[in-house]
Amino acid sequence: MNKGLLIVVSAPSGCGKGTILSEILKEDGYYYSVSATTRNPREGEVDGVNYHFISKEEFQKRISENGMLEYAQYCGNYYGTPKKEVDEMRSKGRDVILEIEVQGAMKVKKLCPDAVFIFIAPPSVAELERRLRKRGTETDEVIAQRVAEAEGEISHAGEYDYVIVNGALEDAIEDFKTVVRAEKLRADRSEY
Amino acid sequence: MNKGLLIVVSAPSGCGKGTILSEILKEDGYYYSVSATTRNPREGEVDGVNYHFISKEEFQKRISENGMLEYAQYCGNYYGTPKKEVDEMRSKGRDVILEIEVQGAMKVKKLCPDAVFIFIAPPSVAELERRLRKRGTETDEVIAQRVAEAEGEISHAGEYDYVIVNGALEDAIEDFKTVVRAEKLRADRSEY
Repeated sequence: MNKGLLIVVSAPSGCGKGTILSEILKEDGYYYSVSATTRNPREGEVDGVNYHFISKEEFQKRISENGMLEYAQYCGNYYGTPKKEVDEMRSKGRDVILEIEVQGAMKVKKLCPDAVFIFIAPPSVAELERRLRKRGTETDEVIAQRVAEAEGEISHAGEYDYVIVNGALEDAIEDFKTVVRAEKLRADRSEY
Repeated sequence: MNKGLLIVVSAPSGCGKGTILSEILKEDGYYYSVSATTRNPREGEVDGVNYHFISKEEFQKRISENGMLEYAQYCGNYYGTPKKEVDEMRSKGRDVILEIEVQGAMKVKKLCPDAVFIFIAPPSVAELERRLRKRGTETDEVIAQRVAEAEGEISHAGEYDYVIVNGALEDAIEDFKTVVRAEKLRADRSEY
């Protein structure tokens, strides 16, 4: 059996990444890597689904045992990708999806050069802003901040392998599947 | 408009490359690059379809004017890829298919690092031999020679970007289209 792919996906907030991934995960053969964190669960969050909620001691122990593929500290809490789960699923032939932000993705790129890096982009920054406004849940200030963050993230798009522009959702989903199928045909993954 | 891809395709004889390409060329947006040669047309061959049949003087003139993307001499005749046609079609957004053997492909790889290299392989050498025998048109000696040539070509498959194993024709055609669509999503061809 061929080893599954490691697919790293990043996108600015508001690009429809969540919708695309939830559609992709309905297909067979994918596995969504659940991150570990030391922060407390929020209401409605389920351990093992939204995150693996673990203690700071446990997290640090895993770091020292080289058990985290990548990790970062944010607001005094650790967030990271448990390595064992990723390796096990890949060796079972499952294509593992890591949904992480740009800095984490770049760390994984150094550690796993055979991973596939997909950046999901909005058709334009103006369109992203329009979509964020349409939600009607955020203040102007928060929207301005999100847009600025998005511009920062988009400036790293060229460091990914693929850029999928989410103009129409069905096309973006098809693009995602196309990239995965094509990557399995790459000569360096081939038995030839 | 985005520049079209340059798609270089090689395959051992008997792998179904011709059938795959004729199906692909039924789709819009592709252009099949016709080679130039100094050999005489064989019965039924049409100038501009099978080859551009040109004189040795004309061919040498084009070489001196840097008008050949790659060329080779074989049995005293020149064979090559006219550059102008390839460039013109790509700038019109057409995806240009070059069907050339391994040595020519490796020359193009050095000159056009943005080209996409696809190797079409048989499911196995044994299966290739079976297919060649099934045709019933070749002697044992010719078949043995073809198989030996195929093994030599297959040893270069890893130097291509993609290997498409032609087990079932429909799958191989779909694989080809998948590779082309995915390549258009690559970050280095993206406007991001």
